[in-house]
Amino acid sequence: MVEHNVLNPSGEPGIYGVVKLKNLAVGVLPIDRDGSTYLVGQYRFPGEYYSWELPEGGGAMDQEPVVSAKRELLEETGLVAAQWSKFITMDLSNAISDERAIGFLAWDLEQHPPEPESDERIVIRRVAFKDALDMAMTGEIRCVFTQAMLFKAVLMVKNGDLPDALARRLGN
Amino acid sequence: MVEHNVLNPSGEPGIYGVVKLKNLAVGVLPIDRDGSTYLVGQYRFPGEYYSWELPEGGGAMDQEPVVSAKRELLEETGLVAAQWSKFITMDLSNAISDERAIGFLAWDLEQHPPEPESDERIVIRRVAFKDALDMAMTGEIRCVFTQAMLFKAVLMVKNGDLPDALARRLGN
Repeated sequence: MVEHNVLNPSGEPGIYGVVKLKNLAVGVLPIDRDGSTYLVGQYRFPGEYYSWELPEGGGAMDQEPVVSAKRELLEETGLVAAQWSKFITMDLSNAISDERAIGFLAWDLEQHPPEPESDERIVIRRVAFKDALDMAMTGEIRCVFTQAMLFKAVLMVKNGDLPDALARRLGN
Repeated sequence: MVEHNVLNPSGEPGIYGVVKLKNLAVGVLPIDRDGSTYLVGQYRFPGEYYSWELPEGGGAMDQEPVVSAKRELLEETGLVAAQWSKFITMDLSNAISDERAIGFLAWDLEQHPPEPESDERIVIRRVAFKDALDMAMTGEIRCVFTQAMLFKAVLMVKNGDLPDALARRLGN
């Protein structure tokens, strides 16, 4: 938490507390040959519930985001993707922190053994993209990063912004 | 910041720091008769940039979210909506906080004078829904709460999940 001495817009002096994070958030929407994607299940302590999400994690600020994304995908799912495309950038909580998130589409997947960090207890589910999307639409998936990635991928298909081969796998 | 003594999944004791927030985030996607919506422009200190977003703010935990949403919409834009529908729930940053956000569609709008809080310096833009969506798709809108609301509204139109009158205004 960094505190700044500032003038409020009303001209009064004030202290503004800002959460400055050392990491970037990276997320991956992996797309398999048959249109499946992969969800990671884990207990989220802050919200106190079991959460299904796309593979996501933290990346060091001085590392290329795609390098961090590749590492997270491998650690959590064991997947190595030959194709990567950055497709979404967002601020997660811009009133209280500078937490920035970058999402990637990843395809041409190859399965390797996962390499979980010792403090992660996660479960992987391979699901049809459409089913993951339904989980986000109904609110069963609550993580906004995951919601935004799934929603935007569909809209990119709708707008013709994805390669045909990928668009077909996403069922549109 | 609350610190919990926990066992890591690996069985080791540890301290887990969790940001517990006193507020809920509420957001509004107002939809005007002609399909326009309203964006709020403001300087976001944590990320240090000028941000365009749907009307959003904090609501007390002991207040109905729709009451907080109505207040935020009135304060920021002067709009009063006769129709409200909760359409999205999300966790904004579930690895580090319990910040929950709830978004509402609001329509049948009436313009009143805005009632800004003294420490807010904001600008309001009335834009076609499609233009707001384009800003989110291109990343000009970086706020993930706004992105997710705009994206989900389009997908609900696509799925036939919105009343016809609303769907028509959103241009589909």
